[in-house]
Amino acid sequence: MYISINNELFLAEDANISVSDLSIQRGYGIFDFLKTINHKPIFIEDYFNRFYNSAKEMHLEVELNRKQLHEAILKLIARNNIADSGIKIILTGGFSADGYTMVKPNLIIIQTPLNIIENTTNTRLALVSYNHQRQIPHVKTIDYLQAIRLQKFVKENGADDLLYHNNGKVRECPRANFFIVTDHEVITAKNEILNGITRKKILSLDIPDYTFVERDFTLNEVYQAKEAFISSSTKNAFPVDKIDGKLIGNGKKTITKLINNKLLELIALDQKD
Amino acid sequence: MYISINNELFLAEDANISVSDLSIQRGYGIFDFLKTINHKPIFIEDYFNRFYNSAKEMHLEVELNRKQLHEAILKLIARNNIADSGIKIILTGGFSADGYTMVKPNLIIIQTPLNIIENTTNTRLALVSYNHQRQIPHVKTIDYLQAIRLQKFVKENGADDLLYHNNGKVRECPRANFFIVTDHEVITAKNEILNGITRKKILSLDIPDYTFVERDFTLNEVYQAKEAFISSSTKNAFPVDKIDGKLIGNGKKTITKLINNKLLELIALDQKD
Repeated sequence: MYISINNELFLAEDANISVSDLSIQRGYGIFDFLKTINHKPIFIEDYFNRFYNSAKEMHLEVELNRKQLHEAILKLIARNNIADSGIKIILTGGFSADGYTMVKPNLIIIQTPLNIIENTTNTRLALVSYNHQRQIPHVKTIDYLQAIRLQKFVKENGADDLLYHNNGKVRECPRANFFIVTDHEVITAKNEILNGITRKKILSLDIPDYTFVERDFTLNEVYQAKEAFISSSTKNAFPVDKIDGKLIGNGKKTITKLINNKLLELIALDQKD
Repeated sequence: MYISINNELFLAEDANISVSDLSIQRGYGIFDFLKTINHKPIFIEDYFNRFYNSAKEMHLEVELNRKQLHEAILKLIARNNIADSGIKIILTGGFSADGYTMVKPNLIIIQTPLNIIENTTNTRLALVSYNHQRQIPHVKTIDYLQAIRLQKFVKENGADDLLYHNNGKVRECPRANFFIVTDHEVITAKNEILNGITRKKILSLDIPDYTFVERDFTLNEVYQAKEAFISSSTKNAFPVDKIDGKLIGNGKKTITKLINNKLLELIALDQKD
C-alpha cells in the first residue's frame, strides 16, 4: 500500500513525517474523506469544495490546485489498485521550527480498502448522547479529542457511537450527520455542524409526502421520532436503532431505506459520469 | 540536536513518526512543557503530576513510570548538552490501523534552547481578547486549533497574543494563565482553565497587603485593573501593557515585578535542591 506525501508516493511503512509537524505539536490540520467505487472518486467536486474551504478558513495553503490534487489522487489509486476505497486527504500546519508558527503545509493522501456495499438492515446501530459542541464546526479539522477520549464511555453505555448535543440541541455524530423522521418531516440540524456531502445529497432528494427541514431539535424529539438515521460518505443513510438505550420508532425504517436507495441511485449516476 | 522517541534518541532530522499516528489523524495527544536551568529540570514533580494526570484523563498509557521518564529526560539533556532549555514531552494516541481506535501511545521528548533570563520590563506585551472556551480545559492537550488559526487575527489587531474569555468571563491565554491586580487583590480565573504550574507557585506566594483570589472576572474588570500579567514556565510573571488596545494601569507594574522576583527565588531554590 502506498501513501502520498506532498505528491510523492511512499510505501506505508516509510510514510513518516517529522515530529516538528504542527499536527503533532499543536493538533493543527484539516482533512477530507471521500470514497471511490470501481476506481472512480464519487462527488469529488463537492469534497474539493469543502477541502479547499477548510484550508482557507484555517489559513493553510494547498500547494496543488484542484486539477493537480485530482491527478495526485488518481495516481495513488492507480498505484494501489484498490477499486473500492476511502481516500483521506490530510493537510497539516507543516514543519514548524518553533512548534507554533504556521509554515508550509504538508499534504498527505491515504487510501484504505472499503467494503462499499453494506447491508444497512443487518447491522444494529446504537448511539449515546453527549453534551459537546465541536469548535469551528463547519471546518473539517482533525480535532477528534472528545470522540477518541469517549470511546470508553461509548462502550460502557453499550453503544456504537456518540450523538453530540449542545445543551440539549442535537448536533451530529463525530463522523456523521444525524436525521430524525417524523410523520411528514425529515429533520436535521442546521447550525454548528459539519455540512456533510452525503447530508447535502439527502436534502436534495424528493421523498413523496415528506419535507426536509433544517432546524434545531431536542433529544426528546429524537426519542419520540418514527425513525432516526446517520449520514456519511461510507455509511450513506444508515438507520439508528437505539439512542440512550431507547428504541427509536417501530423498527421498520421505511423512510430511511427509501432515502438510502435514492442516495445509491445518485452515487451510481456519479459513478457513470 | 537529539529528540527522544519512545526512549530512543534520534537526530532531529531523523525524528519522524508514521502518518498513521492519531495525533496526525485525529489531533489526539497531550503534552507538557518544563524548563531546565543549568541542566536541572525545574519543578519536575509538579509537571509530572500534571502530565500523568492528562494521560489518565485521555486514557493514554505512559509506558515509562516517573523514575524512567525522569531518566529519559536526563539522558536527552546529557546528550544535547544545553544548560538552559525547554523540555516538551508529547504523548500521542499512537499508530492506529483504522485511524480512529486508540492504541499504544508514542512518547516524544524534545529539547529546545531557551534564554531563561528575560528582562520582563523591556518587552511590551499586548493581548487581544477572543471569545473561546478551550475544551477539556484542565488537560494539557495538543489542541491549539484556535490559537494557531487566530495568529493572523492577533497580528491584525496589533497584539502579541490572545486572551480567551467564555462569553465575557476571562479565562487564560493559549500558553499562559492570566492575572489582574486591583488595590488589594491579585485575581485569576478559577474555572475552565489549565492549572498552570507557574500559576500555582504564584498563588502560594505571600505578598504584603494583597490577597490572591481565584474567581470569574470580566473583561471590564481587566480594563480597569491596576496591573495585568501572564504566567508561564518560560515567561514567569510577565506584565501585560495593553489589552484590546487599552493601556492597563499606570505602567509601574510594581506588584507584577514583586511577584516575578519572588517566583525567581522559588525557582532558584528548586534549582539548588
